[in-house]
Amino acid sequence: MDFNHSQKTLGYIERVKAFMDEHIYPVEEQIYAETHKLNPGGDWKNWQVHPLIEPLKKKAQDAGLWNLFLPDTKLGKGLTTLEYAPLAEQMGRVLFASEIFNCNAPDTGNMEVLYHFGNEFQQKKWLKPLLAGEIRSVFGMTEPDVASSDATNMQATVELDGNELVLNGKKWWSTGLGHPNAKITIFMALSNPENDKHSQHSMVVVPLDTPGIEIKRMLQAFGDYDAPSGHGEMHLTNVRVPKENLLVGMGKGFAIAQGRLGPGRIHHCMRSIGCAEKALELAMQRGMSRSAFGKPLMMLGGNRERVAEARIAIEQARLLTLQAAWKIDNLGVKNAMVDISAIKVAVPKMLEEVVDMAIQIHGGAGMCDDFPLARFAAGARALRLADGPDEVHKGMVARLELKKYQ
Amino acid sequence: MDFNHSQKTLGYIERVKAFMDEHIYPVEEQIYAETHKLNPGGDWKNWQVHPLIEPLKKKAQDAGLWNLFLPDTKLGKGLTTLEYAPLAEQMGRVLFASEIFNCNAPDTGNMEVLYHFGNEFQQKKWLKPLLAGEIRSVFGMTEPDVASSDATNMQATVELDGNELVLNGKKWWSTGLGHPNAKITIFMALSNPENDKHSQHSMVVVPLDTPGIEIKRMLQAFGDYDAPSGHGEMHLTNVRVPKENLLVGMGKGFAIAQGRLGPGRIHHCMRSIGCAEKALELAMQRGMSRSAFGKPLMMLGGNRERVAEARIAIEQARLLTLQAAWKIDNLGVKNAMVDISAIKVAVPKMLEEVVDMAIQIHGGAGMCDDFPLARFAAGARALRLADGPDEVHKGMVARLELKKYQ
Amino acid sequence: MDFNHSQKTLGYIERVKAFMDEHIYPVEEQIYAETHKLNPGGDWKNWQVHPLIEPLKKKAQDAGLWNLFLPDTKLGKGLTTLEYAPLAEQMGRVLFASEIFNCNAPDTGNMEVLYHFGNEFQQKKWLKPLLAGEIRSVFGMTEPDVASSDATNMQATVELDGNELVLNGKKWWSTGLGHPNAKITIFMALSNPENDKHSQHSMVVVPLDTPGIEIKRMLQAFGDYDAPSGHGEMHLTNVRVPKENLLVGMGKGFAIAQGRLGPGRIHHCMRSIGCAEKALELAMQRGMSRSAFGKPLMMLGGNRERVAEARIAIEQARLLTLQAAWKIDNLGVKNAMVDISAIKVAVPKMLEEVVDMAIQIHGGAGMCDDFPLARFAAGARALRLADGPDEVHKGMVARLELKKYQ
Amino acid sequence: MDFNHSQKTLGYIERVKAFMDEHIYPVEEQIYAETHKLNPGGDWKNWQVHPLIEPLKKKAQDAGLWNLFLPDTKLGKGLTTLEYAPLAEQMGRVLFASEIFNCNAPDTGNMEVLYHFGNEFQQKKWLKPLLAGEIRSVFGMTEPDVASSDATNMQATVELDGNELVLNGKKWWSTGLGHPNAKITIFMALSNPENDKHSQHSMVVVPLDTPGIEIKRMLQAFGDYDAPSGHGEMHLTNVRVPKENLLVGMGKGFAIAQGRLGPGRIHHCMRSIGCAEKALELAMQRGMSRSAFGKPLMMLGGNRERVAEARIAIEQARLLTLQAAWKIDNLGVKNAMVDISAIKVAVPKMLEEVVDMAIQIHGGAGMCDDFPLARFAAGARALRLADGPDEVHKGMVARLELKKYQ
Repeated sequence: MDFNHSQKTLGYIERVKAFMDEHIYPVEEQIYAETHKLNPGGDWKNWQVHPLIEPLKKKAQDAGLWNLFLPDTKLGKGLTTLEYAPLAEQMGRVLFASEIFNCNAPDTGNMEVLYHFGNEFQQKKWLKPLLAGEIRSVFGMTEPDVASSDATNMQATVELDGNELVLNGKKWWSTGLGHPNAKITIFMALSNPENDKHSQHSMVVVPLDTPGIEIKRMLQAFGDYDAPSGHGEMHLTNVRVPKENLLVGMGKGFAIAQGRLGPGRIHHCMRSIGCAEKALELAMQRGMSRSAFGKPLMMLGGNRERVAEARIAIEQARLLTLQAAWKIDNLGVKNAMVDISAIKVAVPKMLEEVVDMAIQIHGGAGMCDDFPLARFAAGARALRLADGPDEVHKGMVARLELKKYQ
Repeated sequence: MDFNHSQKTLGYIERVKAFMDEHIYPVEEQIYAETHKLNPGGDWKNWQVHPLIEPLKKKAQDAGLWNLFLPDTKLGKGLTTLEYAPLAEQMGRVLFASEIFNCNAPDTGNMEVLYHFGNEFQQKKWLKPLLAGEIRSVFGMTEPDVASSDATNMQATVELDGNELVLNGKKWWSTGLGHPNAKITIFMALSNPENDKHSQHSMVVVPLDTPGIEIKRMLQAFGDYDAPSGHGEMHLTNVRVPKENLLVGMGKGFAIAQGRLGPGRIHHCMRSIGCAEKALELAMQRGMSRSAFGKPLMMLGGNRERVAEARIAIEQARLLTLQAAWKIDNLGVKNAMVDISAIKVAVPKMLEEVVDMAIQIHGGAGMCDDFPLARFAAGARALRLADGPDEVHKGMVARLELKKYQ
Repeated sequence: MDFNHSQKTLGYIERVKAFMDEHIYPVEEQIYAETHKLNPGGDWKNWQVHPLIEPLKKKAQDAGLWNLFLPDTKLGKGLTTLEYAPLAEQMGRVLFASEIFNCNAPDTGNMEVLYHFGNEFQQKKWLKPLLAGEIRSVFGMTEPDVASSDATNMQATVELDGNELVLNGKKWWSTGLGHPNAKITIFMALSNPENDKHSQHSMVVVPLDTPGIEIKRMLQAFGDYDAPSGHGEMHLTNVRVPKENLLVGMGKGFAIAQGRLGPGRIHHCMRSIGCAEKALELAMQRGMSRSAFGKPLMMLGGNRERVAEARIAIEQARLLTLQAAWKIDNLGVKNAMVDISAIKVAVPKMLEEVVDMAIQIHGGAGMCDDFPLARFAAGARALRLADGPDEVHKGMVARLELKKYQ
Repeated sequence: MDFNHSQKTLGYIERVKAFMDEHIYPVEEQIYAETHKLNPGGDWKNWQVHPLIEPLKKKAQDAGLWNLFLPDTKLGKGLTTLEYAPLAEQMGRVLFASEIFNCNAPDTGNMEVLYHFGNEFQQKKWLKPLLAGEIRSVFGMTEPDVASSDATNMQATVELDGNELVLNGKKWWSTGLGHPNAKITIFMALSNPENDKHSQHSMVVVPLDTPGIEIKRMLQAFGDYDAPSGHGEMHLTNVRVPKENLLVGMGKGFAIAQGRLGPGRIHHCMRSIGCAEKALELAMQRGMSRSAFGKPLMMLGGNRERVAEARIAIEQARLLTLQAAWKIDNLGVKNAMVDISAIKVAVPKMLEEVVDMAIQIHGGAGMCDDFPLARFAAGARALRLADGPDEVHKGMVARLELKKYQ
């Protein structure tokens, strides 16, 4: 395992950092505050993208810092998962930064799906505008009425009727559903109950303006609507799309989902690591600049011990994630499944603890919007459930361990 | 220590439970949802109290379940801290319930201050309408520009100028400041820097419509404005009030604060225990009613172990709090300071862990407003900072321990 | 629940404290050191009781501080479980103190069994000398070849053959087996496999010199033989005892075991609390008397926070145990089963953490025999397995919680 | 950072594994049991090395698996710290294995000191027989009468008197002092109090048979004498050695100590990781082979979650240690100090938790000598104090973090 950054990666790290220094950090607080004011509640139909976002995207595109996540050398920058990882870390320091580089979830995952599994028609119709950052997309997997941690519980259905696919079911926690530019969702549903467990589901691309789709509401995750992107609940009733919208084939949903999740978790985890670094940085700055009982806060009681624990936890989380990235690149997603589950468990927990420490150092300021810490905390907590609860992923890790002894 | 509930207490527990069964639980979800819709963001000038609240308050008053927290037999119900404790626990199960019984913070603390330390004029003018539930009040202690965990950092000032007190300074996290009925704040400030450390501050009652008071904004605590009550930031610039508004005397602020905090922490902690019981109840219901991998969620993996840990933690927290209440009643607040610090540390941490477990069992539903769990989590986390960060209270507990060996 | 100590209890606490001050603490270190030297390894046949022990027992008997655990007013002192609890706490401060007062496990449990379930013959023959402190006894339950956390796994058998009971099987972790005065064991075994799950086992009193009993070895628990008492492994091969040695009747083993365990766990837990107090005391003394980096150790980094956490944990553990004791006394063992499981989980964990903190403050000295801390640590860890692993007891607590929702 | 094992390393891993498979594992249990019987207590003067040890050493030497730790290509095998790391991991699986390969502490550290800092005379006299495995050595640093976590507390002295050095002072926790072959100790003491803090101490090689050295006793660490090597207390009274025995020069003790500790901690940590792997392996085997409540133990409750947590923790610990090794090799020990402190904190804690889990799965068997788990636990706990308590190392990590903000 070589975690060394190649010259190419080092160059990109420098360029992403420089871009953030020049263009993003100077407007970070402004965009946080104004986005919040522009989108005060759950009234998603009126949500607006901050006016600085599109110009920033344009700048990133012009700077050649665009679609960095995509391994393709033409459509992306030809970076491996391991090479892209430190760039995702940099982006994770600012809540909206990955979007500026067209590297934000769930679009990245959807683009990967279309890139790897879409046919020419699908790529032209949907991958192209996604890669251009012109539209945004949604991924519909989790359902409100069942425990979605067990995918076999899925109730949504897709049936072939002549040349059309008929879709029914409810999805929620569909990320990005509230975004003004959200145009399509990938919809996963039961199609072939007669097949074996991992060949029963299919994935279909569904334009969001198709009749029969009702967006019920946006959901707050720990008080955060994450506007103007949002996590929504949508109900599909006899929604009809042409069968050309089917990805790969009936019953291939699981196979596609597997491939999609691997790199996506690396991205999530590396962003979380960047986020943790930012939280630690904020903690240090606050802890050195405010005093109580005659000393900087940071020098009181167990605070320095907690800083050390944070530093150690961040280092371990980064190494584990880089190892998983390396395995994806070198052994394939399938042979990295356990590693991908392992980081899914370890990294959000680390982030939660580091952010919690940072909030405690900040006192009341840490709880409100004067700092991004409360949103970091909400995000970290949500990640312990997103893509399956930690417990399910621990089960995955344990299963492999058990295999050695059976 | 006798933690047995007296017949009187048992009677009140029954009555509070019956009232909640009949009047509060049936509208719990409705009030949560509609209050949220009525008060969508931080625009506190337009915040509204849910129309069911005042009628419910009237009903509680008629039922003799009013001002239960106040030990006075005439103005309250003559309940000791220990006797009131289990009633606070019941109220803690619903976010708005304590208000219905006129037992909500910070009004309870302010009423206690006025009851114990207010003169006849002050009691008539402010205690009376507070006890009647006609007005609401605010407590201004924490400041935005310094580490308020060290009270000697306080920058706000109060000076005597003829017959008037002149107030200057900024306060934030002033609970209840956004409420339409909030009419006064108790304001704590530096008045006598020449005195010894615990005699430098004074407390003044300040009507919120006094010129020079500017309410800057309401603060979100972990995404929650807690509307229509809220936690606000106010700036006082040369605010003048008659010297009759001074509580007790110049330099008496700390002595008053000490007395105020003791029972208030019992209330907070008992409500937290009720809140934890509710969270555990929700976890059990969800965990038994949803299934994955062929079993109710609750029967999977380590879930039952976590339920047991929650039950044990709740029991221990309740006993520790009852012990502190007993000591306040029997040994006085001053001799219970360590116990009061101890519950300040132990109970919010317990609540945080129980709620976290409940959220995990709920999956995505636990993060959004379909259940009160996300708000419970926000409240629990905030309590680790409110009234001083845990670390300061651990310092108090350690100090007493150290004394034994010095 | 009234946890107040009665005048009677207060008197006994004073007397036990005074006895320990006068007679036990002055020889504590000497007895630790010399007992260790007298009994250097696992060669149990040569184990010797320290010569000061018997005289100390005599003194305690003369002082009326004897058999304090037994609720009987004639044979014991008529103390309830709750009244005895604080005395056990005092005894727990010194590893051998409970023996001085004839209040040591497993004799207490065995005396309780004989007291509650023994017939006149059995009481005269075995209870009398045990109460006199003339002999010691053993309890044979756990088995080496199966997971004994599930009692239905038990492989030892007892069969009626004419007027004799024939016993076969292996037991280990039989506490006290190495003691020179150990004369009998209570032996639990499968007798009635045809019965329902809780009526299949029987308990028999077996003199240790009966032919067919082989004591295989004494077991170290984390490097500690606990000489000269010890935990042993014994194999019984066609051991024959008269059927008069059967307790209550065939198939009554479980019922007896249930009754035995309740008060015994209170004793264990209260001793653990005394042990934790002693560990905290040692930590404070060491932490205040040694310095590094210019300060007493106790004033460095997070040490005071850890002291506060220890104090809070001890208080909570004590209250939970007193509550369980109160329930045993007032509601019966059966209705206190969950509470008894709860303290089994909570108290050893608390002890482990407090002792671990104390060891860390002591540095190298905490690991070796200069202080009793390493043995406290071994004992605490063992308690997480003794009487069933924590996980089984969490299962008990969860089961009751689940019942409320089924 | 390239953690990839070179072909050379891969070859050595295979050979070490094969050697252990063929020669060590088959006698592992036998040597554990018989060594324990040979050396029943603290009577170190009669301690004996198990008769199989020397023949095994000879075999390892013949197999070219000797002094693998030493980077020198002639005296050792020319392996870098990173290359040696996985070999140390393999050795860590068996308590006595590192000795077989002449890679055991504290001899490795002492050999490194003599290799890097010894002059020709010193190397010929002491390094040579150490490299040959003919003698063993001791390192005298920690002192009984002061908090040795602060090295400036050190009370032992060394003074130049003509051509002799005069040594006085007490040392304890001197590892290997009880070994029959222990012939020398490196002794660190205050020599130049007038110098700046890091130039006040010197290191001297002292033959253990020099008059004035009294070995007071061997110390148990959590019940384990670690015979026949042991950790001892020695008192030096006017011990005189020729000044040729001084390492480097007066006042150079700290500089030598720094260099010594880096690779040593990598070795310790990698052995700990091997030890954790072994503990997890034992847990899996026991957990799959014993059943309760109708299932293998491993399938009950939260056990699989704990296995997953163990696996994740081991992976993270290994990566962090490999990173530190890589930094030592590529950036120098000085630039890896924080990393070395970080693994000192993270790895023993990980080991403690993994071993604790394994013990819990084993039940009573985990506590006694039937498995090496209790000794693993003692070792893990000791490592949280050895080479400085965790708190001091957290301070190191925090200091570097603070530097970034000062």
